[in-house]
Amino acid sequence: MPETRPQAVGFLGGTGPLGRGLALRLAVSGVDVLLGSRDQSRGREIAADLSGQLPPGSGEATGASNREVLERCALVLITIPYQAMGATLEELRPLAPGRILVSTAVPMEFLGGVPHPVTTGFGSATEQVAQLCPDSLVVGAFHTVAAGQLLKLDHTLDEDVLLTAHDSAAKERVSDLVERIPGLRPVDAGSLDSARFCEQLTPLLLRLNRLHRAHTGIRITGL
Amino acid sequence: MPETRPQAVGFLGGTGPLGRGLALRLAVSGVDVLLGSRDQSRGREIAADLSGQLPPGSGEATGASNREVLERCALVLITIPYQAMGATLEELRPLAPGRILVSTAVPMEFLGGVPHPVTTGFGSATEQVAQLCPDSLVVGAFHTVAAGQLLKLDHTLDEDVLLTAHDSAAKERVSDLVERIPGLRPVDAGSLDSARFCEQLTPLLLRLNRLHRAHTGIRITGL
Repeated sequence: MPETRPQAVGFLGGTGPLGRGLALRLAVSGVDVLLGSRDQSRGREIAADLSGQLPPGSGEATGASNREVLERCALVLITIPYQAMGATLEELRPLAPGRILVSTAVPMEFLGGVPHPVTTGFGSATEQVAQLCPDSLVVGAFHTVAAGQLLKLDHTLDEDVLLTAHDSAAKERVSDLVERIPGLRPVDAGSLDSARFCEQLTPLLLRLNRLHRAHTGIRITGL
Repeated sequence: MPETRPQAVGFLGGTGPLGRGLALRLAVSGVDVLLGSRDQSRGREIAADLSGQLPPGSGEATGASNREVLERCALVLITIPYQAMGATLEELRPLAPGRILVSTAVPMEFLGGVPHPVTTGFGSATEQVAQLCPDSLVVGAFHTVAAGQLLKLDHTLDEDVLLTAHDSAAKERVSDLVERIPGLRPVDAGSLDSARFCEQLTPLLLRLNRLHRAHTGIRITGL
């Protein structure tokens, strides 16, 4: 059966570690990726660097401005740290209607090296994206997947990705993307009001990493 | 090597589903259990019922009042629902100094059948127990293990138990108990200020159960 090549997946803040890591894994799986940055030339630089790591048969990695990413891609991962996410979306949201926006940010801060939750005022960062971009289809995903492990292609992933969304077709699209990455399993975690639980797994896993000097992930058993 | 029989493990509220489930599994592993209830005769009734299910070589199940449990046991699991936990501890805490108290309660409420977190004012139920019983050694554990699955002895468990405590010797004692139950793995989740994350896994798992008509648990990968 011939492999179909899905449309390019875009990244807002694609030059940060999570954006690069997810873009790398998706490109390896054959998906074209468009890495956005505030600074277009920075996007191109990171995309060129990523391209150098891709084996034959991979998708193409291209750089762009964040603005171009929203203009060109139907599915966009927001891989901007939480503290900068709101301001970026405030600026770019006129371009977001009709897009599937994947919220990956975790509202947390580090106090003495220890991660603590940050109150969003929206229940979760994912619900904040939905509030800011009411005409987009918002999906929460990838909160618990560590950028560092995605970036090491020789690291075998072994974890679940919890997905929340109101729109089930949009959730299905993101679920298909997760399934393209070996070692990741998508798990439907319901509607957006469960996103807070998915996001708050991350400070727990980071605390476990620190305590056990490990790289932890999560699996839901019994499914 | 002869099996050593640890001291009896006590249960405050041992007649509820989680208490009965954990007592059953521990008794099967050879541990003596003392099931406490507000009503001593109810404790005895449940203990007799439990005894009827125990295969040869099991520990003994005995009923008692909650008060007797604290008087007689060095290690006591508090398996009282969150809404009743505070009042019971207020009454019994003069008997708690020096005891290892295992906090299992999850601060949550059901709104339209959907579990939502409840604010404790202490960060977590586990920290609330520690505040109420400052001269006890408090360990948070078993939040994510479903009573219903514990009670079915033919159900194969497959999940981790996250442990939080300030006192590492107390945590180790509870960790040893977890290891006695096949299919459960203890995972050190640090000190009590991480208990909130462990407790908030439960509403997530309950939401997943509802969505997938499943009995979910959690595994931490990468350890």
